[in-house]
Amino acid sequence: MGLTDDPVRAAADATAARRLPGKVTLVGAGPGAADLLTLRAARALQQAEVVLYDHLVSRDVLDLVPADAELVYVGKASGSHSLPQAQIIELMLQRARSGRPLVRLKGGDPYVFGRGGEEAQALARAGVPFEVVPGVSAAQGAAACAGIPLTHRDHAGAVVFATGHLREDGRGGSDVELDWGALARPHQTAVIYMGLATLPRTCEQLVAHGMSPDTPAAVVERATCADQRTITGTLRTLPQQVKSQGVRSPALVMVGTVVSLHGELAPPAAATRCGHGPEAG
Amino acid sequence: MGLTDDPVRAAADATAARRLPGKVTLVGAGPGAADLLTLRAARALQQAEVVLYDHLVSRDVLDLVPADAELVYVGKASGSHSLPQAQIIELMLQRARSGRPLVRLKGGDPYVFGRGGEEAQALARAGVPFEVVPGVSAAQGAAACAGIPLTHRDHAGAVVFATGHLREDGRGGSDVELDWGALARPHQTAVIYMGLATLPRTCEQLVAHGMSPDTPAAVVERATCADQRTITGTLRTLPQQVKSQGVRSPALVMVGTVVSLHGELAPPAAATRCGHGPEAG
Repeated sequence: MGLTDDPVRAAADATAARRLPGKVTLVGAGPGAADLLTLRAARALQQAEVVLYDHLVSRDVLDLVPADAELVYVGKASGSHSLPQAQIIELMLQRARSGRPLVRLKGGDPYVFGRGGEEAQALARAGVPFEVVPGVSAAQGAAACAGIPLTHRDHAGAVVFATGHLREDGRGGSDVELDWGALARPHQTAVIYMGLATLPRTCEQLVAHGMSPDTPAAVVERATCADQRTITGTLRTLPQQVKSQGVRSPALVMVGTVVSLHGELAPPAAATRCGHGPEAG
Repeated sequence: MGLTDDPVRAAADATAARRLPGKVTLVGAGPGAADLLTLRAARALQQAEVVLYDHLVSRDVLDLVPADAELVYVGKASGSHSLPQAQIIELMLQRARSGRPLVRLKGGDPYVFGRGGEEAQALARAGVPFEVVPGVSAAQGAAACAGIPLTHRDHAGAVVFATGHLREDGRGGSDVELDWGALARPHQTAVIYMGLATLPRTCEQLVAHGMSPDTPAAVVERATCADQRTITGTLRTLPQQVKSQGVRSPALVMVGTVVSLHGELAPPAAATRCGHGPEAG
């Protein structure tokens, strides 16, 4: 892409490309299913010559990238960083200077966790032109496909997204530092990204901060993918259920009475999409 | 759509359609710009024969609907409901019984405000098959296009979405009932949907609940549209700025130190998209 049928124009473009850094597009890959990309994101991928992508980007999404584009994996699974963030940024800036259209592809939405803001700042400071393409975040994909609305007049007037990522505690161990008081409010839905490893501590802290142990809670594994699983229970029961059912990352934790709607609104087990009822699928 | 080239098959399909309710797809229209629809949402619109749409759905999105489809406006502007919610649901169920593929098109994401959960429950209870297609919510569109990340390691480890919609106060007036304590937390971003009318009260209450009056805050008008405007200030200054600049709905309120990144990350004024730098656009 970026080349024209006119060889003189193409040569001029190539010269310009050597002088100017290529544009970087920070693209939200959405929650997993490839058709939950935005139209704008799909077009950016189809025009990319270099794609730096994360752990949480699905194979189906990567299939949209042209076969001759350079695909660079810079992902990090929770707890095992493939590349430190500073190196990801350095690599992105270096590749951008090649002048080729570069997509930095991030799971979900670039500005909801995942350090898109830091990467955008690095681009701005380096004078590299960039664009941000928002995406459907994992919480929204899980909500639609598990039948758990994030807000509902009878249940939750607000929704809060937090991350359960472990942080070093400075004593050789790690812990999750969340504003438990903010998450343990009534009439709201709390969604904790990457919250699987810290689920027992999360449930314990939410109860310690005043929530009933019978508050409905769910874990949604591989939201929007064909093999999505939803485990529902309560703050008291969920950690054991998740352990006994062998739930694995990526998974989201959802807490609040909206989870009680799952039985009514979830698609039947056979559906591979977010549909519900005899003709869904 | 739904018809085939085989007249016998088409007649059989038509008979089946009279017996069974048509499938309803609750589709998130995204934040405004038509290319911020998901691929799945665009396909549902292209296959729709009936579309019930809201106030916040942009003209560009509606242009994707086939010319011969029935377009029904059921929108409600803040404070002036075109149709009460019960009538919207009744109309949706009645049209679904016609057997034609129906899209219920909602601004943003169907399960983030906008009563998508209530509509899904009505469909489930009536035995109408349905599917939910998530969408990019207005907060995410505003974040990308105004250069205000919703989370950022140095600023906000969580983001909360609430709605500033006015409710009757039972004394002939109206007020906004929000969990101010939950919104006034440090190290988080608060986004208030439909928060323009109640902005002065919001700013006053956040300060009363412990936030500094110098906390950065922004209003984003018509997020992701070509005429998007972003007004940044503080909890102290924003209500007057918004008034003097004549900001109108739809608009989102964003509160938190991430707003301070707008100067660095916002696209230049000339850009009509979410781009940044000399080649953006």
